[in-house]
Amino acid sequence: MSIYLHDIPLPEAKARLQSVLEQADLWRVLCMEKITIDENAIGRVLADPVWAKISSPHYHASAMDGFAVCAADTVRAQPSNPVMLRVGPFDKVQGKPEACYLDTGDALPEGFNAVIPIESVESLDERGEITPAIRRQVSIRIRSAVTPWSHVRPLGEDIVQTQLVLPSGQVLRPVDLGALAASGHQSVKVARKPRVAILPTGTELVPLGSDLKAGDILEYNSLVLAAQVKAWGGAPTRFPITPDNFDAICARVAEAACEHDLILLNAGSSAGSEDFSAQVVEKLGTLLVHGVAVRPGHPVILGMVSLRGAIEVSDESTPSPEEIGYLSGTMSSSKERPPRNDNIPIIGVPGYPVSAALTGEIFVEPLIAKWTGRQPQELPVEQAYLTRKITSPGGDDDYVRVAVGKVGDKLMAAPLARGAGVISSLVRADGLVLLSRGVQGAEAGDAVDVHLYRSRAELDRTIFCIGSHDMTLDLLAQFLSEHNRRLVSANVGSLGGLIALKRGEAHLAGSHLLDPETGEYNLSYIHQYLSDFSVKVFGFVGREQGLMVRRGNPKGVESLSDLSRPEVRFVNRQRGAGTRVLLDYQLSKMGISVESIQGYIQEEYTHLGVAAAVASGRADCGLGIPAAAQSLNLDFIPLFQETYQLLIPKNFAESDLLVPLFEVLDDRIFQQAVVNMPGYNVSQMGKLMAEV
Amino acid sequence: MSIYLHDIPLPEAKARLQSVLEQADLWRVLCMEKITIDENAIGRVLADPVWAKISSPHYHASAMDGFAVCAADTVRAQPSNPVMLRVGPFDKVQGKPEACYLDTGDALPEGFNAVIPIESVESLDERGEITPAIRRQVSIRIRSAVTPWSHVRPLGEDIVQTQLVLPSGQVLRPVDLGALAASGHQSVKVARKPRVAILPTGTELVPLGSDLKAGDILEYNSLVLAAQVKAWGGAPTRFPITPDNFDAICARVAEAACEHDLILLNAGSSAGSEDFSAQVVEKLGTLLVHGVAVRPGHPVILGMVSLRGAIEVSDESTPSPEEIGYLSGTMSSSKERPPRNDNIPIIGVPGYPVSAALTGEIFVEPLIAKWTGRQPQELPVEQAYLTRKITSPGGDDDYVRVAVGKVGDKLMAAPLARGAGVISSLVRADGLVLLSRGVQGAEAGDAVDVHLYRSRAELDRTIFCIGSHDMTLDLLAQFLSEHNRRLVSANVGSLGGLIALKRGEAHLAGSHLLDPETGEYNLSYIHQYLSDFSVKVFGFVGREQGLMVRRGNPKGVESLSDLSRPEVRFVNRQRGAGTRVLLDYQLSKMGISVESIQGYIQEEYTHLGVAAAVASGRADCGLGIPAAAQSLNLDFIPLFQETYQLLIPKNFAESDLLVPLFEVLDDRIFQQAVVNMPGYNVSQMGKLMAEV
Repeated sequence: MSIYLHDIPLPEAKARLQSVLEQADLWRVLCMEKITIDENAIGRVLADPVWAKISSPHYHASAMDGFAVCAADTVRAQPSNPVMLRVGPFDKVQGKPEACYLDTGDALPEGFNAVIPIESVESLDERGEITPAIRRQVSIRIRSAVTPWSHVRPLGEDIVQTQLVLPSGQVLRPVDLGALAASGHQSVKVARKPRVAILPTGTELVPLGSDLKAGDILEYNSLVLAAQVKAWGGAPTRFPITPDNFDAICARVAEAACEHDLILLNAGSSAGSEDFSAQVVEKLGTLLVHGVAVRPGHPVILGMVSLRGAIEVSDESTPSPEEIGYLSGTMSSSKERPPRNDNIPIIGVPGYPVSAALTGEIFVEPLIAKWTGRQPQELPVEQAYLTRKITSPGGDDDYVRVAVGKVGDKLMAAPLARGAGVISSLVRADGLVLLSRGVQGAEAGDAVDVHLYRSRAELDRTIFCIGSHDMTLDLLAQFLSEHNRRLVSANVGSLGGLIALKRGEAHLAGSHLLDPETGEYNLSYIHQYLSDFSVKVFGFVGREQGLMVRRGNPKGVESLSDLSRPEVRFVNRQRGAGTRVLLDYQLSKMGISVESIQGYIQEEYTHLGVAAAVASGRADCGLGIPAAAQSLNLDFIPLFQETYQLLIPKNFAESDLLVPLFEVLDDRIFQQAVVNMPGYNVSQMGKLMAEV
Repeated sequence: MSIYLHDIPLPEAKARLQSVLEQADLWRVLCMEKITIDENAIGRVLADPVWAKISSPHYHASAMDGFAVCAADTVRAQPSNPVMLRVGPFDKVQGKPEACYLDTGDALPEGFNAVIPIESVESLDERGEITPAIRRQVSIRIRSAVTPWSHVRPLGEDIVQTQLVLPSGQVLRPVDLGALAASGHQSVKVARKPRVAILPTGTELVPLGSDLKAGDILEYNSLVLAAQVKAWGGAPTRFPITPDNFDAICARVAEAACEHDLILLNAGSSAGSEDFSAQVVEKLGTLLVHGVAVRPGHPVILGMVSLRGAIEVSDESTPSPEEIGYLSGTMSSSKERPPRNDNIPIIGVPGYPVSAALTGEIFVEPLIAKWTGRQPQELPVEQAYLTRKITSPGGDDDYVRVAVGKVGDKLMAAPLARGAGVISSLVRADGLVLLSRGVQGAEAGDAVDVHLYRSRAELDRTIFCIGSHDMTLDLLAQFLSEHNRRLVSANVGSLGGLIALKRGEAHLAGSHLLDPETGEYNLSYIHQYLSDFSVKVFGFVGREQGLMVRRGNPKGVESLSDLSRPEVRFVNRQRGAGTRVLLDYQLSKMGISVESIQGYIQEEYTHLGVAAAVASGRADCGLGIPAAAQSLNLDFIPLFQETYQLLIPKNFAESDLLVPLFEVLDDRIFQQAVVNMPGYNVSQMGKLMAEV
């Protein structure tokens, strides 16, 4: 049977799933369980409102160390007219004394209605002399009256028996546990954690730690999905990898269906020759949705698996009603909830890691929220300005990952790599920009809503660096993170960095733009692009540039003139990159035409990207820095020396935000770490080279 | 030896502790441990930066289902000029075919440099006919050229070997685990969880679940502190209750010192006769600080306990260097860290629950952050406007808990109960307002910075209700929480509610203000106070008012005229409360002078507060509603019928925010729940009674 992927809009997909879950009575808190109130209760969700069983305090308590008295006995006390009160314990022989010592928290004995703090009394011994020993006094002297109930915490001051302590749906925090305990509870009813089975499938998948050969794909989607489920309040189970075999996948789904509330079937959700997920769902239940108009992640499958169908497949005997009831989690609340359910929702999760993680956020998180009775998570939304244009096919809701920093008083959003396979884009993402269906894209400078993963405080300590790529920026980021600063760097080349500074979109730019006329770095470009405002130029690193080639230099490349040889495949940097400017300058000096170079139009955005292209045989050589060559075990042919500087607008250079940057630049340990990388010198690091 | 509490400013207290920890080499990440990367790794803090061990992808991977080709073989293909390519597997006998089928993720075989997606080719069988069976074709026909590397994910597209994957100090999130796995890691070094011993002390303390007698205090501070420690990334140990006995507390501290990084000694931190904490710290080590100028929570103790001293007390043999080294957690990193440490910080935590929780936030959280290498938590700060005046002694940093809601476009902050014993104020707190030392208070309407516990999204769905107290508001809050709304109600009496509406500080006010002239409720007051704008008046409940007395009515109270009897102690509601207006109206009608009533000036803010005063014997009777009487098992003498309405400015009444309110008012189940409480009728609930 052939199944065709057909994308439908996201709201429709969600509505279909919700409607089927409602019919199956699964659109509610799945099941509750009673737990003891201890520190492990944090994060659990109250299934019922909690009303106070006792008042707190449950008696009239002294709020201070001091003496219980009758307010009426003190009315005549004045500074000039002290009143003496006989002190004693409350006992049946002596009767009620006039004052009675209490520690903070002690119960006010019957017949007393106020407390006088110890610092407001004079303690007297048998002879009527003042004594500091508060426990040996026989009387106290006071010089002002007290009103009834002063320095007393009356019964119920905090919580009155029967009042609402916490509503259902409350996600328990540490202080909530205190209030539950104070109101007389030792245990509470919370939503059981939804059990989520995560089934990785794919013949090409290998477990972490495997020896890798080309074509092997490390299986870590199940790890990310399991961690998401756990973070959202579910109980994940990771299953072993199942190969691309229809029967094996059916058997695995059937196995998972018996003990879980939700099945996540990872990969095989598209329409390729080995994509069995849709067929498996049709075989074991109902396929509701195949394809959702979201990007990345459109080949999503939503369906319901029948437990009876699944159990037949798994070749077991017909389940008892109890076994079926178990599934919908109605064990302990069977009186309140319908007793059985034959349906388990299943989500076919796309295989690309970004798609898989977003599918979790879009479909799994709201379901766990519903099943536990808490509010679905809502990321805070703030307006930010795009640092560059983004395009979108327009037919999908497009989730664009962005890095975010606050530059001046504007939030800037720098779009990250768009590929669904680029999990590092999710790691680096500070937020998501959602381009809705029908929107074809957005221009640089456009205001967009960003759904933020980071707090404002984190964004406020973010140094936003746009410009040229250098490998020492990773080191700088690491050192700055130890100084309470986040370095976010977007690699757009030196010229892109200058333009970003001009637009007020970055705190600093790394740049190594050679002026062919003067042989100087950066200054003429600053004059040309940043004439409007003051910029300080700080030394960062001097570095070698040269050709990276595979070990042993199989194509015998020795200089730029070898690039025109027909068998030599070159890989270039993008336009605006300082390295590209350097290449073009040197080529023109040598009279080499760019048309003669095979691969001149192949562009990479970073030195490591160029190195990777060479290491993998995609190209034979590329211009770059020795650290990148060393990283990937390449040979390096040094050709030029160049100067890489940090350009910082004066107002930012003098801001608190950047103080730690200059501390790091001055830090011997950082400088040594840079020098330990090949081809770098730090003789000018941190020095003010120019002020323009 | 006598120890005197002497408050010092908070920054000085923190600096003293930090300085001693620095001297003891304890102001750093305590110790690291290697953990497997699985879902339990979320929330752990990276102790080292992580660099990529492998690239991702680690080979050139097909980005689509399709055919690997040589781009050069396709250059002549055009719509009118198709190119045929012979398909085959790559095998040694046949040699290299011209095209080769690949599933998404398959490795690009040697000699190919692009992929053509399956939907862009025509598959041909032996006879040259087009066939849908992609695996049986012997050749494909294409009608456009492809550029090199199209539809290929080149090696390192996501992560290039040696690049920084995550910096140290990163708190691991689900996607981070994916990036760690993708870059070749199976385990990572994280900070060991700091071990925190929590020692409850106090003869008056009893464990949860005890039968309570007056003076017993339920011990739950250790629960809140343990939950805080766990939430912040530490490993808490809760010790049993130790009575107020110097030697017993010394022994307990010594025991805890042997296996923990931090000791929290709860209560006994003040300077009372049974407060031993300071003496214990002096005996076992060094007392650094006794008293910090913060409120609540000033009797804080900071000190260091000597492990040698502690071990002598605990009567064990002299520890080996390994045992001592263990303490500072240097086991697995002993090469990098000094090998031993003889100091364990100890914090004497005050006994009042609000003080204890704030001491955790102020002192323990930053310490755990330091010891695990993450950033300390920073609550987002927003400006809000105070709903009422707050006063502060001025000598302390004063942490005022506030409820927060967004009314119109302004955030409003309603100060909550100030008592250090009122843990419900922490539960209800949406944020903290910090009044710094030297600030004597703030006026109603003042703009203040609120450190928010809640997200903006939560505040946006908050219904802010200021006015009269009625017990059904708890029920309403519970029902609204099931409709994605938070009801925050501040009880300031009916008149206070009208004034709040007038100032634009609330979405609605509950009110039952009787006009003595007309016998009507609310309308004349609305004309008087809210003449500037449109208000809708909705019916809520009709309710009985009457006198609450203890079971059996021991003082024989039957009507308001009994209030003047000398042996009858009354408890009143605060000025502006509808119940107070009603009382004054009826008293004047009956010609009873307020001076004749004992307790007329004793004020409570809620019906439950009045009921609690009567139940505990603090008063003999009070005017209120039967539900409050029933809650605390009191007798009720019905006297009057009154009307309690909801006053809602027109713009709010028509807002999306309040839609769920009207749904709940129309909900039969809610109405039934109200009627189930004694003395209520709901005949007018949800009806529009007037529009003024």
